[in-house]
Amino acid sequence: MSDLLWPGDHRAGDLFTDAAVVAAMVRVEHAWLAALAGRGLADIAVPGDLATLVTPEDLPALAVGAESGGNPLIPLLRLLRARLRERDPAAAGWLHKGLTSQDVIDTAIVLCLRDAVARIRADLGSQIGALSRLADAHRETRMAGRTLTQHAIPITFGLKAAGWLTGVLDARDQLATAAGMPIQIGGAAGSLAAPTALTGDPARARELVDAAAQDLGLPVREPWHTSRAPLTRVADAFVTCTDAWGRIANDVLVGSRPEVHELIEGAAAGRGGSSAMPNKRNPVHAVLIKRAALAGPPLAALLHAGAAAAVDERPDGGWHVEWATLRTLARRTVVAGAQTADLLAGLRVDTGRMLATLHRARPGIDAEQRSITPQAPPEQPYLGASDEIIDAVLTRAAKPG
Amino acid sequence: MSDLLWPGDHRAGDLFTDAAVVAAMVRVEHAWLAALAGRGLADIAVPGDLATLVTPEDLPALAVGAESGGNPLIPLLRLLRARLRERDPAAAGWLHKGLTSQDVIDTAIVLCLRDAVARIRADLGSQIGALSRLADAHRETRMAGRTLTQHAIPITFGLKAAGWLTGVLDARDQLATAAGMPIQIGGAAGSLAAPTALTGDPARARELVDAAAQDLGLPVREPWHTSRAPLTRVADAFVTCTDAWGRIANDVLVGSRPEVHELIEGAAAGRGGSSAMPNKRNPVHAVLIKRAALAGPPLAALLHAGAAAAVDERPDGGWHVEWATLRTLARRTVVAGAQTADLLAGLRVDTGRMLATLHRARPGIDAEQRSITPQAPPEQPYLGASDEIIDAVLTRAAKPG
Amino acid sequence: MSDLLWPGDHRAGDLFTDAAVVAAMVRVEHAWLAALAGRGLADIAVPGDLATLVTPEDLPALAVGAESGGNPLIPLLRLLRARLRERDPAAAGWLHKGLTSQDVIDTAIVLCLRDAVARIRADLGSQIGALSRLADAHRETRMAGRTLTQHAIPITFGLKAAGWLTGVLDARDQLATAAGMPIQIGGAAGSLAAPTALTGDPARARELVDAAAQDLGLPVREPWHTSRAPLTRVADAFVTCTDAWGRIANDVLVGSRPEVHELIEGAAAGRGGSSAMPNKRNPVHAVLIKRAALAGPPLAALLHAGAAAAVDERPDGGWHVEWATLRTLARRTVVAGAQTADLLAGLRVDTGRMLATLHRARPGIDAEQRSITPQAPPEQPYLGASDEIIDAVLTRAAKPG
Amino acid sequence: MSDLLWPGDHRAGDLFTDAAVVAAMVRVEHAWLAALAGRGLADIAVPGDLATLVTPEDLPALAVGAESGGNPLIPLLRLLRARLRERDPAAAGWLHKGLTSQDVIDTAIVLCLRDAVARIRADLGSQIGALSRLADAHRETRMAGRTLTQHAIPITFGLKAAGWLTGVLDARDQLATAAGMPIQIGGAAGSLAAPTALTGDPARARELVDAAAQDLGLPVREPWHTSRAPLTRVADAFVTCTDAWGRIANDVLVGSRPEVHELIEGAAAGRGGSSAMPNKRNPVHAVLIKRAALAGPPLAALLHAGAAAAVDERPDGGWHVEWATLRTLARRTVVAGAQTADLLAGLRVDTGRMLATLHRARPGIDAEQRSITPQAPPEQPYLGASDEIIDAVLTRAAKPG
Repeated sequence: MSDLLWPGDHRAGDLFTDAAVVAAMVRVEHAWLAALAGRGLADIAVPGDLATLVTPEDLPALAVGAESGGNPLIPLLRLLRARLRERDPAAAGWLHKGLTSQDVIDTAIVLCLRDAVARIRADLGSQIGALSRLADAHRETRMAGRTLTQHAIPITFGLKAAGWLTGVLDARDQLATAAGMPIQIGGAAGSLAAPTALTGDPARARELVDAAAQDLGLPVREPWHTSRAPLTRVADAFVTCTDAWGRIANDVLVGSRPEVHELIEGAAAGRGGSSAMPNKRNPVHAVLIKRAALAGPPLAALLHAGAAAAVDERPDGGWHVEWATLRTLARRTVVAGAQTADLLAGLRVDTGRMLATLHRARPGIDAEQRSITPQAPPEQPYLGASDEIIDAVLTRAAKPG
Repeated sequence: MSDLLWPGDHRAGDLFTDAAVVAAMVRVEHAWLAALAGRGLADIAVPGDLATLVTPEDLPALAVGAESGGNPLIPLLRLLRARLRERDPAAAGWLHKGLTSQDVIDTAIVLCLRDAVARIRADLGSQIGALSRLADAHRETRMAGRTLTQHAIPITFGLKAAGWLTGVLDARDQLATAAGMPIQIGGAAGSLAAPTALTGDPARARELVDAAAQDLGLPVREPWHTSRAPLTRVADAFVTCTDAWGRIANDVLVGSRPEVHELIEGAAAGRGGSSAMPNKRNPVHAVLIKRAALAGPPLAALLHAGAAAAVDERPDGGWHVEWATLRTLARRTVVAGAQTADLLAGLRVDTGRMLATLHRARPGIDAEQRSITPQAPPEQPYLGASDEIIDAVLTRAAKPG
Repeated sequence: MSDLLWPGDHRAGDLFTDAAVVAAMVRVEHAWLAALAGRGLADIAVPGDLATLVTPEDLPALAVGAESGGNPLIPLLRLLRARLRERDPAAAGWLHKGLTSQDVIDTAIVLCLRDAVARIRADLGSQIGALSRLADAHRETRMAGRTLTQHAIPITFGLKAAGWLTGVLDARDQLATAAGMPIQIGGAAGSLAAPTALTGDPARARELVDAAAQDLGLPVREPWHTSRAPLTRVADAFVTCTDAWGRIANDVLVGSRPEVHELIEGAAAGRGGSSAMPNKRNPVHAVLIKRAALAGPPLAALLHAGAAAAVDERPDGGWHVEWATLRTLARRTVVAGAQTADLLAGLRVDTGRMLATLHRARPGIDAEQRSITPQAPPEQPYLGASDEIIDAVLTRAAKPG
Repeated sequence: MSDLLWPGDHRAGDLFTDAAVVAAMVRVEHAWLAALAGRGLADIAVPGDLATLVTPEDLPALAVGAESGGNPLIPLLRLLRARLRERDPAAAGWLHKGLTSQDVIDTAIVLCLRDAVARIRADLGSQIGALSRLADAHRETRMAGRTLTQHAIPITFGLKAAGWLTGVLDARDQLATAAGMPIQIGGAAGSLAAPTALTGDPARARELVDAAAQDLGLPVREPWHTSRAPLTRVADAFVTCTDAWGRIANDVLVGSRPEVHELIEGAAAGRGGSSAMPNKRNPVHAVLIKRAALAGPPLAALLHAGAAAAVDERPDGGWHVEWATLRTLARRTVVAGAQTADLLAGLRVDTGRMLATLHRARPGIDAEQRSITPQAPPEQPYLGASDEIIDAVLTRAAKPG
């Protein structure tokens, strides 16, 4: 999958594609079937791989078929049942028994989100490494600090990088909090009525859920069909990531301006070219990251709006709006994370230009220092606790997120 | 194209797919090349169809290639040039001459939007027909009017349908205002510098733009690379459509509740089924329309945010965020428009149930009437100017939008 | 009224304050009472000014009283009735007769919006004047055109100003389309049932509406309690304004950077100061305008979300969310409009610095020209149709919006 | 403070009003001055209460004065300095020394947020109590479970209440995570340059920050002028609250419909009245809560957009947009929290009506049961693990959040 209108989308690869979602739904059905079989409830062999029952050629028909019932599980289930019946009629009879569509779709979405989160956490780790190196390496790299676009006081680029890193660490921590998305199995109205009827016992019904959760590697949780905080939390964390990356991209975009030219995106074959002006080198990664930072907040807001629209034991639209929104948000966050990791790994810092700008900004940029310590010698540094702040941020970065 | 996670997406067919966007970009390049040739500027024959130079198999590579330059036109142009060179080297040398990426992409987006707008206007027309019939047919169908969820005073279903129609007519009128999206050709910085240099004359450069616009059937306008109201206006109109449809869906969702059961979605083969409860008939269309109504506003807000982020002679991210956003918003609006047309065409109105509810709501629902005209006989109707209001709305509906 | 946390808010003065909303509600009640009296329906004298019945001291109690009924008209009506009864018991008996809360609140909101729109249109006019002068005066002011933050080709500042002006003209035209917000009178469920019962005739009920509309200077329209496009349209127009102004502010913010320093905000007593760095001059207006441009889109999206949540004959929350949202959006748009007018009136253009930057950008910035016309003499201008484009935009500006 | 257009706003009392923000800013200045004095740096007595230097009459002038510097601290500081100079000239000379506007404003905002968070947590506690009682008391209260508006399978109202409670507990936990908002002190560019110059030592500068933090009861953190996750996190938590409350309100709104009438808002003097229909009892609390749930997500999205727009060492608009947005979001969340607590405390559950609806929904609502256990006796319950799920949720509720 790739999206011509979201350059870089291919970096998210197969994450959350239609095929991946189908595979995840099949995996959930399999885990449930295996639990029914493993607990001796269904008198069937633990089923073999169900994934082979569906092929990429099935996807368009599944997508079309999703409309009449309002969700993609219904046509998939019909197809799975028919094909499994040929292979193992008994298993086909037990397929999906006790579940509701939302159980399978929600848990499949969680599996796809988990893959996206893992990718993002890996890229956050890479960014943290690069930023830690930049912060440490540039403790002595002086430059003009800027506030409200104007020269304020001298800083170091190491301090700036530590500030970028703080945002990335905040994102890491928030994503860690959101990462443990749970399984969702509650049956038609969240009471586990059908699994209990099947097993004859609520405790055994809950054991089925536990078994499926263990199979899928997901935490257990009481049904949350209409309590969507597990999803809004991860969406908020995604946006906290793009906030942090957008904030870095903004500085790179300013730093790339020819009049400033302190920060330059690393060159890569063909990157940054212009269709009409072969001489230009555009800060393409920063542009695309800024794009993602603009796009994230409305999508997370939509997930909250969907959560707030929940009603009854299954919402009438608030649920349906989540799926594509989470996919888009997750893929874009993955893409922006990879682009930011690349941007930071290749970033060129023009320390000479930084120093030259700082000198040109004098004496204005020294005004605060002179007002605080009028008697200080002209070359007295004015870097405050920059080193200590960098140390503190590096210490935080070194701890596991 | 179809999206498993946005059931109904297939209804938008090929609109705004990667293939459609590529075809539109090729068409823009062709129109420009034809203008150069037709005006005698390029000493080449009017070029044949360029569309055959690109195949569906090229799309994945184009999508990947879009990242390095930050937009999809750059890899497309490279491919077009190479393939055209084999067919007609002179024409290949003139391809894209005087244009900038944004000229081609913006104009291609406009072409895709125009197709979407045409589809939506057709469905609005169908809805207006259905709603006009409902409003007229149900002038005498009494029901409980409800405010803040409670019974208020008696109304007719015809009046309610006229209210729905008012929203649809507002959407129609707003879309009509937004429909004339213009061509965008301004060259590298919006000054037509290259076309002028090519022709030696600003007036002749503008004639080239006129010729291309005529070829594409688009209005002419001064360059708008950083003035994005033509796009936000159509996005706002799309959302005004989904607002109107969502408002209808909300009433259908209330009316479908078994306890109310005044409005029932038309049955269609397989529609509204449940994976676990074969007896259920869900109001699927209304659910999916409500979903679209939730999803629209944040996307339009994002387009405004992109427009407000414009800077310099080409924005550094505010532009890039538009493409996929407009595609998603346009396709979803097309889908919801078709679903609403179907919903209205098949809507079943249970007039008996309406009347029964109205009777049960008495005497409370007659309280206002009694307070206004205490002396009125018990069976005095209290429908006010409903007929006149319906007439006025039908008259408005009958005028061309 | 002024808001410490939205600097500049005082510029909106009394627009849409609690007092202004109360005054507008009273005015609507008065217009209706006058219509009842004027048409001979109520046997009362045309009532004197009702505005004197409410004082600023009443506002806190009215605000508190608004909660129990969920809207501010209910406590206001109670208060008006009690006080009018002392002055004119017969008139008190006819007050609000035939209306519903939403009639009065919606129409009062429309009155407040009309005042805001008038203010914004005046400021748009002032901006159009200033921008027209800038575009015309700087036809020869050469500067570096920038795309994706990088130098692209030479342009003139006149062309840039014409681009800014295009956005402002788009906003003007969109606001003109949205400006004719109508009266809303429909009674309890939008059928004019009570006015018809009072007059005994639907036609006479509609004449009452016409009379009130004429009194208030508003267009007539069929009831739109649940068709909210008149409000979303004006909200979209407000955001189209802040988009256009934000786009200008972005260029000023880049231009104000010391490394660029081509555009400088006019000095005013005390403006742009820093609490710690007395030497700094911050581009405060541009900062505050950019703030407003960030803030507008989510508010307009909320109004659409409210419109899409309409249900029944009066929505259960979708209506209530509009009031404060429209107030905030309207006031902020007024403030940003005034700030933009000031910014443009005082903007200093450093033409020498522009030229110097252009020279430093050579020869890279001439690359496109050399590729298009390799034979051109070195000093050949490359400004394309800038003059013609400016002319076209000025012509558009000169037409009444 | 109260807002006529946001009924219920008075419940937030003085939280985050202009006066409260000024008081918080004064408190921050005082804490810093006390740190300077306490650490022996400033040769002044620990200053007395500074709050008395400002009066409510100063607020309008401060609001007006905030525009020229772009923030409210600049005029406040001017006023404080002038008045303190009369009382204690030495202290006036040390006021704000080493700080930047953003230090004071950010920390003051944090203080105001802390107050709001405390209020919300108290109301969450009250809601958790009420919901725990409802869930426990209604373990045997049978009702129709509904999905996609249709009857699905039987449930108990206890299970529904446990589902509501799950959402509230998620909100509680998320708010707990976000609650420890830190002090912000970094000086002009986040390096503590001025405090270090004042003390001659970075470690002592950081001790000043620690002392001020301790005085204010806030956690310490490295400067976060451009890393805004502490604020977006609390905003996301606020919206997670309104999501959970909105979800409850939606069920109450459905349950209040006369055709359903299973859930009725508690009566209170005058609440729920209609201006025209004295017989009506509107579910006003639920309506106003739903309103807040609609309004929250766009505001949180705006805070993320502001965070993502951070640039340089102090943003040029992304910062300024936070203040009023946080105020509005915080107050509305407080109001909705109080309204939800009231709603739950007074909620009337019509168990007879629930049972009657369930009976009427038969046999359709038993279809799943019959398909799972065709042999089950007709009166076999089908409540699954409802009791165990309720137990689990109650156990979670009983743990400290």
